[in-house]
Amino acid sequence: MATVKQQVERLRSRKPLIYNITNVVVTNFTANGLYALGASPVMGYAAEEAEELASAADALVLNIGTLTAPQVEVMLTAGRAANKAGTPVILDPVGAGATTYRTEVTHRLLRELDIALIRGNAGEISSLLSEDTDVKGVDGSEGREISAAEAARSLKTVVCVTGRIDQVSDGSVLYHVHGGTPALTDVTGTGCLLTSCIAAFISADGENAAQAAAACAYYSACAKEAERTQPFSGPGSFQQRFLDMLQQLPDEAVGESRITVEEASY
Amino acid sequence: MATVKQQVERLRSRKPLIYNITNVVVTNFTANGLYALGASPVMGYAAEEAEELASAADALVLNIGTLTAPQVEVMLTAGRAANKAGTPVILDPVGAGATTYRTEVTHRLLRELDIALIRGNAGEISSLLSEDTDVKGVDGSEGREISAAEAARSLKTVVCVTGRIDQVSDGSVLYHVHGGTPALTDVTGTGCLLTSCIAAFISADGENAAQAAAACAYYSACAKEAERTQPFSGPGSFQQRFLDMLQQLPDEAVGESRITVEEASY
Amino acid sequence: MATVKQQVERLRSRKPLIYNITNVVVTNFTANGLYALGASPVMGYAAEEAEELASAADALVLNIGTLTAPQVEVMLTAGRAANKAGTPVILDPVGAGATTYRTEVTHRLLRELDIALIRGNAGEISSLLSEDTDVKGVDGSEGREISAAEAARSLKTVVCVTGRIDQVSDGSVLYHVHGGTPALTDVTGTGCLLTSCIAAFISADGENAAQAAAACAYYSACAKEAERTQPFSGPGSFQQRFLDMLQQLPDEAVGESRITVEEASY
Repeated sequence: MATVKQQVERLRSRKPLIYNITNVVVTNFTANGLYALGASPVMGYAAEEAEELASAADALVLNIGTLTAPQVEVMLTAGRAANKAGTPVILDPVGAGATTYRTEVTHRLLRELDIALIRGNAGEISSLLSEDTDVKGVDGSEGREISAAEAARSLKTVVCVTGRIDQVSDGSVLYHVHGGTPALTDVTGTGCLLTSCIAAFISADGENAAQAAAACAYYSACAKEAERTQPFSGPGSFQQRFLDMLQQLPDEAVGESRITVEEASY
Repeated sequence: MATVKQQVERLRSRKPLIYNITNVVVTNFTANGLYALGASPVMGYAAEEAEELASAADALVLNIGTLTAPQVEVMLTAGRAANKAGTPVILDPVGAGATTYRTEVTHRLLRELDIALIRGNAGEISSLLSEDTDVKGVDGSEGREISAAEAARSLKTVVCVTGRIDQVSDGSVLYHVHGGTPALTDVTGTGCLLTSCIAAFISADGENAAQAAAACAYYSACAKEAERTQPFSGPGSFQQRFLDMLQQLPDEAVGESRITVEEASY
Repeated sequence: MATVKQQVERLRSRKPLIYNITNVVVTNFTANGLYALGASPVMGYAAEEAEELASAADALVLNIGTLTAPQVEVMLTAGRAANKAGTPVILDPVGAGATTYRTEVTHRLLRELDIALIRGNAGEISSLLSEDTDVKGVDGSEGREISAAEAARSLKTVVCVTGRIDQVSDGSVLYHVHGGTPALTDVTGTGCLLTSCIAAFISADGENAAQAAAACAYYSACAKEAERTQPFSGPGSFQQRFLDMLQQLPDEAVGESRITVEEASY
């Protein structure tokens, strides 16, 4: 298996075009983060261009963080075109469980589209598995236990559950990614940007679960190094420094994250 | 009365959920600022989820900075649900007076909803009091004199007028907050974020005018410290450093702002 | 001819109001950049206020980066009001050529409005000149050769083509601006913000091509200085430092960019 460093290099040599239909809170941060990683972001919200962008892109990201009804239709149009073109579709169900609408739209996207991977926190992913959820706001994942492998089998796609330790599973293998820093949770959109970075990794290679784990590992290493290389002074400095690291992480720091892989138990 | 420091600590222990229907210019900065303060932001623009979010939230912020007609309806839906649930509704009339539409929508929101507090600059607030206004752009408050106490009595709610010296009044008492720095006016969205921070303070306590004054004092102290702790080099650095301070203001710096309180004169 | 420094000073003394109908990726960065430059930004997306804002503004910027059909109508409404009021209209055809929709909307705006200046990269501008284009994403301009003078004559307006060397032409004279740094291309929205800065320069003086060249020269000098004054550490740091420089560029650094002017050859 290629090392994380090799996977980042391969991504950069291809400069994949990532089409994001995402929320208004994180649009700028997502675009800057994808550029820093070495991908090429495009955002587009018009039904008139959704098919063309989805067909041309190397991956499509659907992020439901600030949904409106017209945007759901654009997501479906883009998603169908991506499915037809063989473009992988990655879903970030921001705030699923926080409102009925978000949960329902997520289920609809899962039902009507072929989704290559879902990334969310434990609260969001568990809200897709049962009715019994109580998510507060869009970052409410404290203390929740969830198995990415069970979620993957239930949702029939690759699932990435991020938290203190990230999990990725396609239902048969299970990756754990150790690393990162809680400082990531102080900046809005770090989960959303990770989803778009996973899309960029996946677009460069068909092994979705392995690629997503590599993306999490690289992302965590960037966060750790961003926190380390300057006396930590708060979320404003961290956000800027994190973008720096996505572009310029020193080679030796890539290894600060650790990926373990095991057969998913039943 | 609790000190500003105690009020911030109380806010952080509750981590209030602040539902923002706000403008596209400041969305990211507002979310990051609320996280830094210790609150939990959520943004949502769909009619389908507005009632649910407004009922679950600890405060609702309506900011008219980049209004569209569908957004006004969502604001009204969210506002009615908030009123029903007892969730305080805070209004930021960005650019009221700059266009007829903004002035009219502000009046409509004031008429149809129970607004707990309005925060604006002198130009915006005075545009709500008379027809005789001439506001240039959305930051046009130079040289204007206005009494928050009179505005509060006229608008029948708590009014916060920010500027070189911030004023807060419920019509019977009048707070003045001394401190801050003009550097705040060089960064877009600092007024909008203050409104959301006031919402977070208010949600933790029912004394709206006193809480808003505490929010202004904390905010000003963060700005002063952000300017002081690094050789001031411009608005980009200041914006980042200000977010750092919202999270990590040293205790001794809280006192850099000064609140005075007096009976409002008639 | 006034020096670039004198032109910046004149702009600041007038503090022009720049009305931006722009894309959601760059809204915050555009507002902060215009404030830093010394202009006064306003964003507005409601048909109800588009005419009033366009009439009051000193320049109108139309940026098609995240178009939707309702937004096109608002652009036309604002554009017509601007034309009637004599407010210059500046167009940024982000991603023209990347989708049929963006190319068609750009042509429609050019047909129905009097556009004072178009700014784009080589890929975007060339897509307006012929059907034979293949633009990847919204930043796809590598290796493309284009003449701003020919584009200006074809499109019958002032054209600014930015890249390693910026070109501005009204069809009869041709300016080249040498300077800048590739770091600019690592931050999203630097092209969009340049368009809004050009609008601010133009609004202060009727010589559109000369003013646009001055804007490019100032912008490039700020970028060069942002890169120089701190050990370059990545796009996050650069973005912040660039905003600092837009406000506080040392006088001696203005000369780091060089403008040449020649008669446009046929």
